[in-house]
Amino acid sequence: MSQFQLTESFVDELKSWISRDLSAEITSALTLLFPADIAELFEELSKVECKYCLDHLEVNKAVEVIAEVEEDKREMLLMMYSPKEIASRFIENLNSDDAVDILYALPKALSQEIISYVTDLEYSIQLVSLLHHDEDTAGGLMAKELIKVNLNWDLAQCTEEIRKQAENVTKVNAIYVVDNNDILLGIVPLKLILLEKAKTNVSQIFDTNVIYAEVHTRGEEVANIMSKYDLDALPIVDSLKRLIGLVTIDDVIDFVKEEADKDYQLLSGISENVESKDRIWVLSRSRLPWLIIGLGGGLMNSFVIRGFENQLSTNLQLALFMPLVAAMGGNAGVQSSAIIVQGLANNNLDTKNIFPRLAKEFSVALINGLICSGLLLAYSALVGNSLNIAEVVSISLLAVILFASILGTLIPLILDRYKIDPALATGPFITTTNDLIGLFLYFSLARLIL
Amino acid sequence: MSQFQLTESFVDELKSWISRDLSAEITSALTLLFPADIAELFEELSKVECKYCLDHLEVNKAVEVIAEVEEDKREMLLMMYSPKEIASRFIENLNSDDAVDILYALPKALSQEIISYVTDLEYSIQLVSLLHHDEDTAGGLMAKELIKVNLNWDLAQCTEEIRKQAENVTKVNAIYVVDNNDILLGIVPLKLILLEKAKTNVSQIFDTNVIYAEVHTRGEEVANIMSKYDLDALPIVDSLKRLIGLVTIDDVIDFVKEEADKDYQLLSGISENVESKDRIWVLSRSRLPWLIIGLGGGLMNSFVIRGFENQLSTNLQLALFMPLVAAMGGNAGVQSSAIIVQGLANNNLDTKNIFPRLAKEFSVALINGLICSGLLLAYSALVGNSLNIAEVVSISLLAVILFASILGTLIPLILDRYKIDPALATGPFITTTNDLIGLFLYFSLARLIL
Repeated sequence: MSQFQLTESFVDELKSWISRDLSAEITSALTLLFPADIAELFEELSKVECKYCLDHLEVNKAVEVIAEVEEDKREMLLMMYSPKEIASRFIENLNSDDAVDILYALPKALSQEIISYVTDLEYSIQLVSLLHHDEDTAGGLMAKELIKVNLNWDLAQCTEEIRKQAENVTKVNAIYVVDNNDILLGIVPLKLILLEKAKTNVSQIFDTNVIYAEVHTRGEEVANIMSKYDLDALPIVDSLKRLIGLVTIDDVIDFVKEEADKDYQLLSGISENVESKDRIWVLSRSRLPWLIIGLGGGLMNSFVIRGFENQLSTNLQLALFMPLVAAMGGNAGVQSSAIIVQGLANNNLDTKNIFPRLAKEFSVALINGLICSGLLLAYSALVGNSLNIAEVVSISLLAVILFASILGTLIPLILDRYKIDPALATGPFITTTNDLIGLFLYFSLARLIL
Repeated sequence: MSQFQLTESFVDELKSWISRDLSAEITSALTLLFPADIAELFEELSKVECKYCLDHLEVNKAVEVIAEVEEDKREMLLMMYSPKEIASRFIENLNSDDAVDILYALPKALSQEIISYVTDLEYSIQLVSLLHHDEDTAGGLMAKELIKVNLNWDLAQCTEEIRKQAENVTKVNAIYVVDNNDILLGIVPLKLILLEKAKTNVSQIFDTNVIYAEVHTRGEEVANIMSKYDLDALPIVDSLKRLIGLVTIDDVIDFVKEEADKDYQLLSGISENVESKDRIWVLSRSRLPWLIIGLGGGLMNSFVIRGFENQLSTNLQLALFMPLVAAMGGNAGVQSSAIIVQGLANNNLDTKNIFPRLAKEFSVALINGLICSGLLLAYSALVGNSLNIAEVVSISLLAVILFASILGTLIPLILDRYKIDPALATGPFITTTNDLIGLFLYFSLARLIL
């Protein structure tokens, strides 16, 4: 089918079936939908209605739906089951990476209780060990399920092993080759298993050139490696190079999206990860920090201006261009910081040597500053403004653009060096700082020149 | 191997080998690297040095390198070959989607000449038909290479066909099932081909529940579908539902990144897709448009202020809070527009009915505006500022935040309705507009109250 379109009439019909307890209709309607569609549908249903649906789905599908549902909704739904039920109905039937994603989001005590009810001892140990990893590292993104074969086997043995292991693995990406100590040696593309003869030995055809990552690698780095080398799956090894897990592309694409969304929101002055459908208070809370910082900056501005009240009262025309100078500093600063933050996120910036970077940013700012100042001077001459004021405004404009660009370049680089998210240096922070510096420069120049 | 680290000494050694024509050393050093690494290395080499490397690589690897190299560099490199050579050495050995990506980026006349030299007639027809599609649609992203089997075959026939087709296909994602007219009917997971008996018929095991997209679907929509349903590959059909191509996740992840980068840059006031390593003039040109718009906005601001010069000269204190009011309008507006743009990009916003959206934005703005105004009043009372001025500033602040939020919500929604990229409404544009409106409100209120 093409993509499913959720309609109001469908939701209404489903709700009425649920209220009349028409379980057969529910089951047959939901069977036609993909888990992701049911998760979308759940957004429109109450938690009791959702539970009714979950309980009338086939176990494997219910599990996939739970993995797809949004975090807040999921927690609400799970709370309607006992920890023991959560373990037996959901956690035990999920791939370890999805199970861990769910457990991460729950209160720690609850997730431990749930794990204690997992009957498969080996699996519960896997879950505990996965939970030890930071959510944003390779260890936190990886699943334990993967297909590995021994170097010394032939392809018939491999196929046999794949048959056995494939039952636990939803999607087979590739077959990894290990030695007797589980050390990762290489990879056999699934294609070759189909194409080569059964008697062929793994050691004859496997490719030693396999890209892997260490378990502590940051999620961003994992995403960069996978996208650079066009990988569907990335094997993860421990410090002894033993194969311990696999990160698959679907987890990474979500990660890339989340990271991009976070940076975008920081740039726009939103300090929590929110969506437009979140509740009013959440939306409001996510925006307040930056507004209050902006307010503080504005009050500091008022002090700066108060310090130059004499200049202002003798030359009221100076007031006309205050917003211009302040805004241009903000604009230029945001432009510079954004390109640095993006370069850092995409891993294509040399952070060891920042002077060439600064020199380049300075040149760009110089060109743009001169053009803007020139335009402003030309305009003033044309309109017949006071040339003294025009001079002050133009020189400040150039100075502010230069200053803002340097600051916009330096601050994210410095934050990055101290392992702080450089995206914090974008948006309102840089704007507010540059407003302040801009006005100070402007009035100082006015004092000098006028 | 773990990820390759490009070192200066490696580059220097390679350059010296090239200058001494030590082709054996070059070939053996490059054999150890992945195409993506060689593409990265090429960024450090001159075009003559790159060509030397390309000519000493195995054909299939050279082709992959060309597909990985950045667009500007690639065009430069290709120009060192004749159109006939480009066809025979590169285009003929690439998957059709990568070939088309390269051809898209070249001048139209040149790419047509290249295709005319492609000796495989069927392939050249495929290329021409792919080039007809818009680069940002399913048709522009898809490859023609895929594995399809007939409904009536058994698995032994399938395996045979896979062997035949797999030679052209780098990565096997799934096997698609079609009828005699090539109409897409379903999918067989590769896993099943391994697990089921050879005598099993395709019709017995194939899954009719396959997600597909039509050839004209926008790239953003393709990315949303694949990430929603966790797909590695999405089959593409024509208007008769005939299977004509396949979009794979690696193309989509690049697309998602590019789109996110573009929106991020627009929000920060950069109007071309640039990277920090682009040339100074390119960087400068990408930032000028918004700076000049900002400049224009600033000049309009000066007109607004000039219109209220009387208020200002009798109440110089008004000048103190001008930057505050202007900046807060900008901040609140950017926050609102960013969340709308993101909601539109992630496809989780109901655009049919915008009034609930506006009402919500208004509520959020009301809460935040009241808090900010309250803080400002409290501060003024504490410091002992003139209460009249404090009143004007607080009321304007509330009004500006409300106004900016509504505008920040409406403009991207309106742009989207008229099929204009809503991200254009973020960043300096919204800031500049709100600066202007903020100052106007501020002085109008001052005239009323003082």
